[in-house]
Amino acid sequence: MPQTRKTKRVSKAVLNKLRQVSTPTITTQLISNHGLKNVSLRNVLPIDPSLRRFAGPAFTLRYVPLREDLLPEQYLDHRANLMTPAVEAIPPGSVMVLDANGRNDVGILGGNILMRLKVRGIEAAVTDGGMRDITEIGDLGMPVCCTAFAPPPSFTKLMLVDTECAVTCGGVPIFPGDIIVGDDEGTVAIPAELAASVAEGGLAQDHLEGWVNRRLAQGDAMPGLYPPAKKAREAYDKWVADGEPDEI
Amino acid sequence: MPQTRKTKRVSKAVLNKLRQVSTPTITTQLISNHGLKNVSLRNVLPIDPSLRRFAGPAFTLRYVPLREDLLPEQYLDHRANLMTPAVEAIPPGSVMVLDANGRNDVGILGGNILMRLKVRGIEAAVTDGGMRDITEIGDLGMPVCCTAFAPPPSFTKLMLVDTECAVTCGGVPIFPGDIIVGDDEGTVAIPAELAASVAEGGLAQDHLEGWVNRRLAQGDAMPGLYPPAKKAREAYDKWVADGEPDEI
Amino acid sequence: MPQTRKTKRVSKAVLNKLRQVSTPTITTQLISNHGLKNVSLRNVLPIDPSLRRFAGPAFTLRYVPLREDLLPEQYLDHRANLMTPAVEAIPPGSVMVLDANGRNDVGILGGNILMRLKVRGIEAAVTDGGMRDITEIGDLGMPVCCTAFAPPPSFTKLMLVDTECAVTCGGVPIFPGDIIVGDDEGTVAIPAELAASVAEGGLAQDHLEGWVNRRLAQGDAMPGLYPPAKKAREAYDKWVADGEPDEI
Amino acid sequence: MPQTRKTKRVSKAVLNKLRQVSTPTITTQLISNHGLKNVSLRNVLPIDPSLRRFAGPAFTLRYVPLREDLLPEQYLDHRANLMTPAVEAIPPGSVMVLDANGRNDVGILGGNILMRLKVRGIEAAVTDGGMRDITEIGDLGMPVCCTAFAPPPSFTKLMLVDTECAVTCGGVPIFPGDIIVGDDEGTVAIPAELAASVAEGGLAQDHLEGWVNRRLAQGDAMPGLYPPAKKAREAYDKWVADGEPDEI
Amino acid sequence: MPQTRKTKRVSKAVLNKLRQVSTPTITTQLISNHGLKNVSLRNVLPIDPSLRRFAGPAFTLRYVPLREDLLPEQYLDHRANLMTPAVEAIPPGSVMVLDANGRNDVGILGGNILMRLKVRGIEAAVTDGGMRDITEIGDLGMPVCCTAFAPPPSFTKLMLVDTECAVTCGGVPIFPGDIIVGDDEGTVAIPAELAASVAEGGLAQDHLEGWVNRRLAQGDAMPGLYPPAKKAREAYDKWVADGEPDEI
Amino acid sequence: MPQTRKTKRVSKAVLNKLRQVSTPTITTQLISNHGLKNVSLRNVLPIDPSLRRFAGPAFTLRYVPLREDLLPEQYLDHRANLMTPAVEAIPPGSVMVLDANGRNDVGILGGNILMRLKVRGIEAAVTDGGMRDITEIGDLGMPVCCTAFAPPPSFTKLMLVDTECAVTCGGVPIFPGDIIVGDDEGTVAIPAELAASVAEGGLAQDHLEGWVNRRLAQGDAMPGLYPPAKKAREAYDKWVADGEPDEI
Repeated sequence: MPQTRKTKRVSKAVLNKLRQVSTPTITTQLISNHGLKNVSLRNVLPIDPSLRRFAGPAFTLRYVPLREDLLPEQYLDHRANLMTPAVEAIPPGSVMVLDANGRNDVGILGGNILMRLKVRGIEAAVTDGGMRDITEIGDLGMPVCCTAFAPPPSFTKLMLVDTECAVTCGGVPIFPGDIIVGDDEGTVAIPAELAASVAEGGLAQDHLEGWVNRRLAQGDAMPGLYPPAKKAREAYDKWVADGEPDEI
Repeated sequence: MPQTRKTKRVSKAVLNKLRQVSTPTITTQLISNHGLKNVSLRNVLPIDPSLRRFAGPAFTLRYVPLREDLLPEQYLDHRANLMTPAVEAIPPGSVMVLDANGRNDVGILGGNILMRLKVRGIEAAVTDGGMRDITEIGDLGMPVCCTAFAPPPSFTKLMLVDTECAVTCGGVPIFPGDIIVGDDEGTVAIPAELAASVAEGGLAQDHLEGWVNRRLAQGDAMPGLYPPAKKAREAYDKWVADGEPDEI
Repeated sequence: MPQTRKTKRVSKAVLNKLRQVSTPTITTQLISNHGLKNVSLRNVLPIDPSLRRFAGPAFTLRYVPLREDLLPEQYLDHRANLMTPAVEAIPPGSVMVLDANGRNDVGILGGNILMRLKVRGIEAAVTDGGMRDITEIGDLGMPVCCTAFAPPPSFTKLMLVDTECAVTCGGVPIFPGDIIVGDDEGTVAIPAELAASVAEGGLAQDHLEGWVNRRLAQGDAMPGLYPPAKKAREAYDKWVADGEPDEI
Repeated sequence: MPQTRKTKRVSKAVLNKLRQVSTPTITTQLISNHGLKNVSLRNVLPIDPSLRRFAGPAFTLRYVPLREDLLPEQYLDHRANLMTPAVEAIPPGSVMVLDANGRNDVGILGGNILMRLKVRGIEAAVTDGGMRDITEIGDLGMPVCCTAFAPPPSFTKLMLVDTECAVTCGGVPIFPGDIIVGDDEGTVAIPAELAASVAEGGLAQDHLEGWVNRRLAQGDAMPGLYPPAKKAREAYDKWVADGEPDEI
Repeated sequence: MPQTRKTKRVSKAVLNKLRQVSTPTITTQLISNHGLKNVSLRNVLPIDPSLRRFAGPAFTLRYVPLREDLLPEQYLDHRANLMTPAVEAIPPGSVMVLDANGRNDVGILGGNILMRLKVRGIEAAVTDGGMRDITEIGDLGMPVCCTAFAPPPSFTKLMLVDTECAVTCGGVPIFPGDIIVGDDEGTVAIPAELAASVAEGGLAQDHLEGWVNRRLAQGDAMPGLYPPAKKAREAYDKWVADGEPDEI
Repeated sequence: MPQTRKTKRVSKAVLNKLRQVSTPTITTQLISNHGLKNVSLRNVLPIDPSLRRFAGPAFTLRYVPLREDLLPEQYLDHRANLMTPAVEAIPPGSVMVLDANGRNDVGILGGNILMRLKVRGIEAAVTDGGMRDITEIGDLGMPVCCTAFAPPPSFTKLMLVDTECAVTCGGVPIFPGDIIVGDDEGTVAIPAELAASVAEGGLAQDHLEGWVNRRLAQGDAMPGLYPPAKKAREAYDKWVADGEPDEI
């Protein structure tokens, strides 16, 4: 009897905008405008930080600690296994979010499943546990975010019991369809219904703060400039109106 | 898409036997005969250790960290709240198992809900978080097991997202219908299909070990006696056949 | 350059009311009416749970990890020591709050200092570390709250660096003058300016919930009764108007 | 190739004195006179706090995490098992110290082994893990100190690999023959060669501090009295010379 | 009285094979064929991940927390010091495994000892603590695996008490002579008697999974292919029989 | 009423010398010559390890957990905010040390404040929490040391309550004016009055150990050479007297 939540679909245009906003800016938007403080997955970072930012709706998988007699069901070719169907069912563009109970001593996914996910057009894979087959993951070109490198397969400690349900990942509550955004600095979850607002607000904030940063670099003092008071905001508006000249 | 598991119903006779077996003995039965090592809920103990042992099928509730904008849904009179229907729906004789994510800084249940559960004939309430209203709980006469005393209500940190699903409690995987047994020393989970075997095996083990304990108290050395080798076992069998005389 | 905060003085009448409100009720008041979630000191419990509830303004002491060459200054008779003056200066009725950095492996206070505090009329002593001389503390009759029993003196690990400043205790921010309330279930901090409101609201809540509890004990179902909807609230109001008869 | 250390034998007279000194006093002696800060086993407390203080030389056992294929060797009747010989070999008067790697999710000893140890005249059993068969332990009358109640047998997680070697228990290094002293407040380890000095110094400290405590209870201020300056010390000396009259 | 275990010597040929098997594959072999789940040292990673895989028999060193009065014995030129003899005695080709009690705040080895180990032909050094002199270690060209960078010398917190005994490292039990294998992803321990089987099984698994990976990259779905069912296995066998053509 | 400590001013010459000494050497100097064991900030590392070593006096900031109603005061343009004045007041050459309570889930500083600090001539910024705006920090060219990358702003969890007071950072006590030195391996704190001695001793130690390292690289055994006994020391002295020829 899970709570049923209808998730707003988020447009490609909004996702594209979110791919231009940094994760710190997203967290600022979510606390300042929406009162959400707990949106950043603790210590969940990309294995290859050189990859582009990603954004997509969450497709969730939930694990609990292994019960030893259910180990056979964890093998990918057991008829009760939930992973193989999930890998074939997850919609392209999704971010697979695996609630690994924060265990950094298992590799929740390895090279072969990740290869299949990549081929299927998945945007990224995210877990609060470890990942395995790190070399292969480095060659994959798909963002894979985790808290650790961990050789052992997941079924040494965990078993998969549910998909497409509310989960916890990195201490953050995530519902299916929440928008997951990641960059080289972190991974955040945005409730789907706030995605458009965060995208707009984030782009505006980044633009304004970029201007602030250049003024600071020139030697201006912080009071009145950061955060920008009325006069600084007017200077910024003028600079924008002037076509954003190099000199500021 | 949770895994569906059919749970074997456990008879009252088996539950009654389990109420006579100590939790250490149950853990020994589960590892030695069934290979299950992870069955004892870490640090989950009764608030009133003087109450009798309890045993009943698990009725599970699952929490994740609170998302601040969903706080209103946590109030018991909100139409989306899952707790009030669960409290009225849980079958008498069940053990309510609440996966509190191991947070010992919230009181997952308080005096009023527990009073309703008691009136409804619930066997016990068990969580890996804190409980609140400790004085009222002490007066209740129903086993309530937790990891801590914690005044704050659960919704300061957590939200309830699902019921009657697989959960983790005290590090142990628990499916709905698993048999939960508790005493003043701990709380354990038994897969329903093993309950009868554990009940029989546990009673036999306790009886034999009681005899061993008295022999040890008399000064017999451990080798051959504990665990009982062939000769000791014959002496025990004879003692049983003799009607278990006081002198052993 | 600490932030300066003026603290509202809290009257004896309000403190007396707070001594009649349970810590769970105080936490409910603080989140529901004032949006404060983080007010309950994690795992800080009285050594003797049979003592009465206490309430008083915080007098704070702050420790940091010991620097070995400053060990001599930690001895109570060293001229630079801050504890001896604090013990003689703390106003009667205060609650001494010691930020022990959450270390449960040192006894932050022992029998002699606590005896002096008691003689000086201190309301209680509270720390998120251990306490030592547990037997003497048991004989003292003054509430002493901590997270552990710990024989070693504080200066094996910590040094006292400041008094009457903002501290952290049990994960909760505490300013000098905040009202600290404790019972057998926990210890909470109330901003001084909210103390009167919490006292009034808490007494009202406890009274109403006591009536609810008796109705639940009689077998009434939860929906509409807890939390009380319009009809239940009218029944409660009538019961109060009728002079709170035994039958409800 | 363990380091070989000769351990000084400690006389019964010294042990008897140590049984009259509290664990906080012992820690003060060890840091103030011998520079030892890390002597108190974290959170290792007696299951029955009403038992007398104990003191005796450590007989150590060392565990490491279980390797699953060596589980059979952990059964007490396996020829490679180290526990059964240790239980029969440990000298009467010893304190059995079991390095459980700080795991509070296993019961390192249960009722039957503890019964044999008691019959064999062991002074106490101490571990930084859990204990099991808590009810039987309560009936035993022998001090048993641990960090938790834990039903599962040790071999669900650990295996015994060595005896009579240096171990860690509760974060404290312990060599065979170190003197272990415990009371209702904690458990401490004293290097054997310091035991006599600690016993003498501790008795003197307790006596002096008892006098200080009574003066504080009478209302004397702390400065000059605690710790006692020259004048206070002379008053104490006079009081002792006067035969310790009730009035002080 | 440590348990005595005879260790099978592992041939150079087997070690060479193990140097071609990835650590994830080794963990899969150990759980699937031998039931061993706890073989991967948590968070123990090479300082220079570009170095080749290493494999060799463990030579173990065991630390416990420092007792302050034994600090002089920790200096490398003290006659009781165990490190200097160990560094000169460890056989070439060994992997030095240092049980640092999981302390990531000390550097268990520094540049000079590691230089000597390298000159002596040691295969690698592995600890579950920190390492120090990170720049020098980077220049060394010998695999050095740890959980952290930590400037302070080991004797600020630990003392060495034993060598060539069973230890715990990164949560894994390790006996002298166990085969330690490491790559850029992790460090694992293989019981010596299983080394040959793991080497053979691992090479075969890697070869088969490489073929699977290429099929997945071509767009084949997972069911039936990973893990390979009968038909897929026949295709693989044919591919091998055909001389492993580029096209698959 | 904080303890008042006069801090010795450390000359530029000493700071320059400290910038040539590695952090491991500094920790060795502090324990061996001054008995200070707890000087290395746990897990506090530079975001860009390629930057030069830094050294400067600490300017401290202290945080405690957020009280939700004080969130507005955390905004940089609130009149009660302490950060903006601190950023403008911190003397050039200082190291800003932020006691983030060890929280690795908030970014204690971001790109704009750090830009202003850089422009103002700050030597480095150090915290035991996370940092945010990692890309901008990478472009800054100023050492920024932390325990994690963390997108969320500090005020999601913490509030700034004091500056220029004793703090804890990475488990180490730090007073204003203590000298903070950092390199790619760690960050350490030196009491100001010991800075000159550590600088001299450290340079000498590094020089001697460099010579030892080259001898070890040539194949000399450790005993007598490391640490250098009389004969080795004479050889070193001769080598220095000979003008440090390449051949040693």
